[in-house]
Amino acid sequence: MNTKASSDIGLVGLAVMGQNLVLNMADHGYSVSVFNRTTSKMTAFVERVRKEEPSSERVYGYDTLEAFVDSINRPRKIILLVQAGRGTDATIDSLLPYLQEGDIVIDGGNAHWMDTIRREKEIRARGLHFIGSGVSGGELGARFGPALMPGGSEEAWASLRPIWEAIAAKVDPDTGKPYEDYEPGKPITQGTPCTTHLGPDGAGHYVKMVHNGIEYIDMQLICESYFLMKELLQMQADEIAAVFRDWNQGVLDSYLIEITADILAQRDPRDDSRFLVDRVLDTAGQKGTGKWTSVSALDLGVPANAMAEAVFARFLSALKEERVAASRVLKGPGVAFDGDRDTFIELIRQALYSSKICAYAQGFSLMNEAQKEFNWQLNFGTIAMLFRGGCIIRARFLQKITDAYRNDPELANLMLDPHFRQALHDGQSAWREVVAAAAVNGVAVPALMSALAYFDGYRIAVLPANLLQAQRDYFGAHSYERTDEQRGRSFHVDWPVDGRPEIEL
Amino acid sequence: MNTKASSDIGLVGLAVMGQNLVLNMADHGYSVSVFNRTTSKMTAFVERVRKEEPSSERVYGYDTLEAFVDSINRPRKIILLVQAGRGTDATIDSLLPYLQEGDIVIDGGNAHWMDTIRREKEIRARGLHFIGSGVSGGELGARFGPALMPGGSEEAWASLRPIWEAIAAKVDPDTGKPYEDYEPGKPITQGTPCTTHLGPDGAGHYVKMVHNGIEYIDMQLICESYFLMKELLQMQADEIAAVFRDWNQGVLDSYLIEITADILAQRDPRDDSRFLVDRVLDTAGQKGTGKWTSVSALDLGVPANAMAEAVFARFLSALKEERVAASRVLKGPGVAFDGDRDTFIELIRQALYSSKICAYAQGFSLMNEAQKEFNWQLNFGTIAMLFRGGCIIRARFLQKITDAYRNDPELANLMLDPHFRQALHDGQSAWREVVAAAAVNGVAVPALMSALAYFDGYRIAVLPANLLQAQRDYFGAHSYERTDEQRGRSFHVDWPVDGRPEIEL
Repeated sequence: MNTKASSDIGLVGLAVMGQNLVLNMADHGYSVSVFNRTTSKMTAFVERVRKEEPSSERVYGYDTLEAFVDSINRPRKIILLVQAGRGTDATIDSLLPYLQEGDIVIDGGNAHWMDTIRREKEIRARGLHFIGSGVSGGELGARFGPALMPGGSEEAWASLRPIWEAIAAKVDPDTGKPYEDYEPGKPITQGTPCTTHLGPDGAGHYVKMVHNGIEYIDMQLICESYFLMKELLQMQADEIAAVFRDWNQGVLDSYLIEITADILAQRDPRDDSRFLVDRVLDTAGQKGTGKWTSVSALDLGVPANAMAEAVFARFLSALKEERVAASRVLKGPGVAFDGDRDTFIELIRQALYSSKICAYAQGFSLMNEAQKEFNWQLNFGTIAMLFRGGCIIRARFLQKITDAYRNDPELANLMLDPHFRQALHDGQSAWREVVAAAAVNGVAVPALMSALAYFDGYRIAVLPANLLQAQRDYFGAHSYERTDEQRGRSFHVDWPVDGRPEIEL
Repeated sequence: MNTKASSDIGLVGLAVMGQNLVLNMADHGYSVSVFNRTTSKMTAFVERVRKEEPSSERVYGYDTLEAFVDSINRPRKIILLVQAGRGTDATIDSLLPYLQEGDIVIDGGNAHWMDTIRREKEIRARGLHFIGSGVSGGELGARFGPALMPGGSEEAWASLRPIWEAIAAKVDPDTGKPYEDYEPGKPITQGTPCTTHLGPDGAGHYVKMVHNGIEYIDMQLICESYFLMKELLQMQADEIAAVFRDWNQGVLDSYLIEITADILAQRDPRDDSRFLVDRVLDTAGQKGTGKWTSVSALDLGVPANAMAEAVFARFLSALKEERVAASRVLKGPGVAFDGDRDTFIELIRQALYSSKICAYAQGFSLMNEAQKEFNWQLNFGTIAMLFRGGCIIRARFLQKITDAYRNDPELANLMLDPHFRQALHDGQSAWREVVAAAAVNGVAVPALMSALAYFDGYRIAVLPANLLQAQRDYFGAHSYERTDEQRGRSFHVDWPVDGRPEIEL
């Protein structure tokens, strides 16, 4: 093992995300101490680095936590990339005896923000610092530039900031376009880093969670668009790939659209006459952050229906055997499309884009409500900019969100911004036609539909909830307000009324 | 105060639900001791009972918990109808010193089932019994016959059963039709009681919670049907009332449809030229059980999207000022309907009924998953029968659910039952047309849409989640299964593939 005693930073947890983050830091000139609970994994990693990586001389492995901690310059910065939940708590507990005042523990896992709030409080009470930082961008992002979403004390951030800014993805400060010319040992050093201090305690992990919730909707919307082309337009995977490739040149330009085109064009490695996607089983897994986001929306009273629909769609996909059995007895309509294919493809594109605006409107509305609940001051323009590079939802479109919040930091809802408002006005006719065609032809598009219901519900001054509240008053005496009285005054009648008077409660 | 020392049962918490449950028990010949934290409320209640109620001689008030507990025959049965949450815990704590082995505490509030599981365990450890019992039916139900959904030990149920069966709503054992000839002092004594032992610990409160979740969807679907008639068909409230009155003669026959007709026909007590519903503010409140149900669906991985949509619809209704502001700048399509009004009303009826089947399918699927998670053995036929009377979602339709589960206790999904399958096959064309018209005309119908997406997603053997799982493998190496390999085997390729081999994980 190594005996050098002055690393810039340490990292615990050498699964692929941890390994790649280490290499990213080393590429940027930082010396990194590493530790892993299973020592052999650490040894193998360090050996591989020595052989293969240009920045190998800056990575040092340790087989005891004490030696690992001792090897890091004070105030120590120690990144945890271990299993979220109990894994994180156990690692913190085992580290604590070796840490000293002012040291900083950085949790880079997908922690629940309430756990981060708890841990930050506990660790602060010991004179240490805790940063909960979302790390987005998957393996490739961790290696060459992730979006980093840290929450914690200002003091700890000041210490971590140079490293976090160095290793984060970078975007062109004028256009917001990410630099993506990745090569080991040749780090990207220009541009605006996709990281910033988001706020205290759980703010970073919350923003990262909402990022994931938006990612769920983005992916589901793309799947529904693919589904419409496949089922309604009877297109082959490579034809659909070409459509996504084309869409990626316009307002939909994004990482997820780009990889969708790659995937759909991919032939089965086992059989070149087939497309791989047609051989992939239609059951989607998940790791829970979409669920957390939906639960948070329910807890905070934020109408984020498309987010929940995207999660439920994954659940439904998992019921594969049930669906196969049901498909034999539950019949839908015959699918019949007799319009112009290219025209309908353009309608789908507009439906996808309009729904995507709603997806982001829901995500940003949720963050807005969360910041009130948890006393954060989130800067939504900066958050959208931070999402521009590195992360899974990176998209050209985010620049417009940054612009929207820079133009009006108090924007009540993204759909109200003049640019997006216009986009929705332009796209809604196509969107409606696509949803109607899906309904009539029996193609399940829960996210496209729920986003439309959200748009139509939000822009309506009078919803039918007057009837609903009257029902609640009828059977439960829950009272109602009146449109011709001031807000906050509550009334009740004994239903059915039969001439009895209305009373004020 | 009273000194009689041999009441059949006691009740703590004299809000209107508690008061009515006391009177219901007294009407059935049970002597009831009552206690309330604020003594004056108890005194006023007992005084009113003495003056007004035929069963007044069987109600006894106490101003200390000790005297209250002493007045009840052992093993004591003490019903709590206090504020759910900390109110329940505090009341239990204050009762415990006076209780003796074998006594039974019955929580009739809307408790979270996980709290009920915890309380049952704690109280059982003290040699006492705890029953968590859902009480449904609002004030009127509590007074003349609620649906009662108890969970707890067999032993405690044997003791509570005679009273619970006496005071519960009753239905005709052959037709399932509820007896609803209510009159104080003249209790209904014939028929099958709407209560049964649902299982241990939290089973009763869980079933009651799902009942409420279904109620949320039922109400939202009715509101959306009303909304379509109001916005698309430009009908007045009394015209719509007549439609619901008519629908109540058929398969939709239910309490909620009945009160909807009452509500819509009701003129404003302040101004006879207007309808009250048009003066009620369109912001719906809630007490959280719909949210709990949706969160439980998310936790258990059950696709209950219509349930979440119904909750989100209430959230959206609460954003009144935001919606009014948005309505000035976010424009929808012009509403244009040029079909036959009566024809379209019939389409809405079929859409509502089809969606309602999906709502119940989601609720029963959720209970099915919950019973596996919490080790209950729920009898769904009995649960549907229990919902037939007393409770808010009581409906003729439930008899068919009872039949469905009696025909096939292992039914995977209610939609697969031959009766409901036929109903969905018959109704889907209308349902699709209504959803399409709502989409094209900009009328927000999130529950009708999400139920349709659920139906269409469930009956499809191949969903587009193959693409989604490929995306997950692309950016996160989450692996995929193959349609031409056995379930459980996981594969991965390094995307974009470029000739690299697929590997098995």
